[in-house]
Amino acid sequence: MRTYLDCISCFMKSALEMARLVDANEIMHKEILDDVARAIPEISLGCPPPEMARTIDRIVKRHLGNVDIFKHIKEESNRKALALYPRLKNKVRFSEDRLLTAVEIAIAGNVIDYAAKNSLDIEIEIEKLFTNDFAKIKRTVFDYTHFKDDLKKARRILYLADNAGEIVFDKVLIEEMAKPDQIVLAVRDKPVINDAVMEDAEQCGLHQIVRVISSGVDAPGTILRYCSEEFLELFRKADLIISKGQGNYEALSAEKGNIYFLFRAKCPVIARHANVDLGDIVLKRSH
Amino acid sequence: MRTYLDCISCFMKSALEMARLVDANEIMHKEILDDVARAIPEISLGCPPPEMARTIDRIVKRHLGNVDIFKHIKEESNRKALALYPRLKNKVRFSEDRLLTAVEIAIAGNVIDYAAKNSLDIEIEIEKLFTNDFAKIKRTVFDYTHFKDDLKKARRILYLADNAGEIVFDKVLIEEMAKPDQIVLAVRDKPVINDAVMEDAEQCGLHQIVRVISSGVDAPGTILRYCSEEFLELFRKADLIISKGQGNYEALSAEKGNIYFLFRAKCPVIARHANVDLGDIVLKRSH
Repeated sequence: MRTYLDCISCFMKSALEMARLVDANEIMHKEILDDVARAIPEISLGCPPPEMARTIDRIVKRHLGNVDIFKHIKEESNRKALALYPRLKNKVRFSEDRLLTAVEIAIAGNVIDYAAKNSLDIEIEIEKLFTNDFAKIKRTVFDYTHFKDDLKKARRILYLADNAGEIVFDKVLIEEMAKPDQIVLAVRDKPVINDAVMEDAEQCGLHQIVRVISSGVDAPGTILRYCSEEFLELFRKADLIISKGQGNYEALSAEKGNIYFLFRAKCPVIARHANVDLGDIVLKRSH
Repeated sequence: MRTYLDCISCFMKSALEMARLVDANEIMHKEILDDVARAIPEISLGCPPPEMARTIDRIVKRHLGNVDIFKHIKEESNRKALALYPRLKNKVRFSEDRLLTAVEIAIAGNVIDYAAKNSLDIEIEIEKLFTNDFAKIKRTVFDYTHFKDDLKKARRILYLADNAGEIVFDKVLIEEMAKPDQIVLAVRDKPVINDAVMEDAEQCGLHQIVRVISSGVDAPGTILRYCSEEFLELFRKADLIISKGQGNYEALSAEKGNIYFLFRAKCPVIARHANVDLGDIVLKRSH
């Protein structure tokens, strides 16, 4: 997905929100916004939005001394999600269609997305999973039947993680897919926003069930031209790719491969691009 | 009121919305956003936001050939508001406190504000005036008693208009103040967003009841350093100033004078500054 002009004001907004997360004064915040503004004329609308999100992340870190801004937020997300894990597993155990429930859980975990909506109380959102409210969320595009068929046949599965915390929900889905030796989980190479990196995968015990690799990317989306050769090899050979979150959708929606995009549509521009409604839960096949 | 960092993403958003109003292509829209971005490092946070809104208006016009972008929207607003005028007058006629009702009508007219909320259906908002819904709107700051007293004593009243269309609602209040020879109405000097200029005052018949002057300003707010000498003389000598809308509040909240700000709080930053809640109707005395 390319960058739309509507994304630009959002870039400024998220840069300010990131800057404010750190103990910094308003003068520095203004300097960060000025640098983001200076980068705007350089944006090519042909690139996916995570390209600019990567630039913003670098600008913020340049001003703040290259700290992992979201470290504590990520640890907190991991901790909270792990505390929910037994309930999530129980929900799967007592459901009629275990795989479907696990898919829904993985998508539900995508509300843990600091970049898109900071004010939303994640616990309230997750609680919906355990009531009827989650079942009521619209699913305009939900290619579950195809997904189930492709999963049965798949021999090489690549799972692209999105956020810290969310990966505990991914763990539930990965465990239901029941082919641990055929699955590789890819995380970001370096901290960017609250995206999951190797450390988060370890904190959440993902490395105990599947092979975990870095995609090589330090953007909040799997932009292939930044990926490592090791990752690209796996990407090309995979017969099923599970792509979590909006950032990965933005980066990969135009790429080849048997990709299933799982995310919650939290941004109106992405929702329109994916032909779904804002707020939808989405399971979308790439072709 | 100074410019807050939260205003910056809003500047980008409103520039894009303005650009899209005109039949222009995306390449031009991007060029406009690039120029607005280039202006951001030049913003002094000490200036009120209408200063930057004025810059944006100039950038947009430079790209679009200095057209009066909102001409048709303003004419439409004036036409619709004039069609409501008999009902507004009736509402005043049959109310217990005619002045209070006229004040409420003048504030209700402030929803006709393209800059702050483009999608809101103005007619639905105005219809609330004629039901109980308007009475239910919160008024955390509503200095009506002071306003009434000051109005009784006032000999020189300066009324600062805000938007086209809205001035028909102002007309209702002006007529209730019943001192037409003591009131001067000031409009913007040149078209800026959908703010009322002399032409709008004439279209709405304001010039038939009071003296109408230009403030000299082409910003969407009465920034005193851009005002004409004639206006400043009136401003200094006025014993009561009625300031309509958010733009005038932003420009004048720190200025001296017996100013009453009448507006609907449509922006969270302004609401916080004025100590009211978002959505409130506000009648706020300046000191």
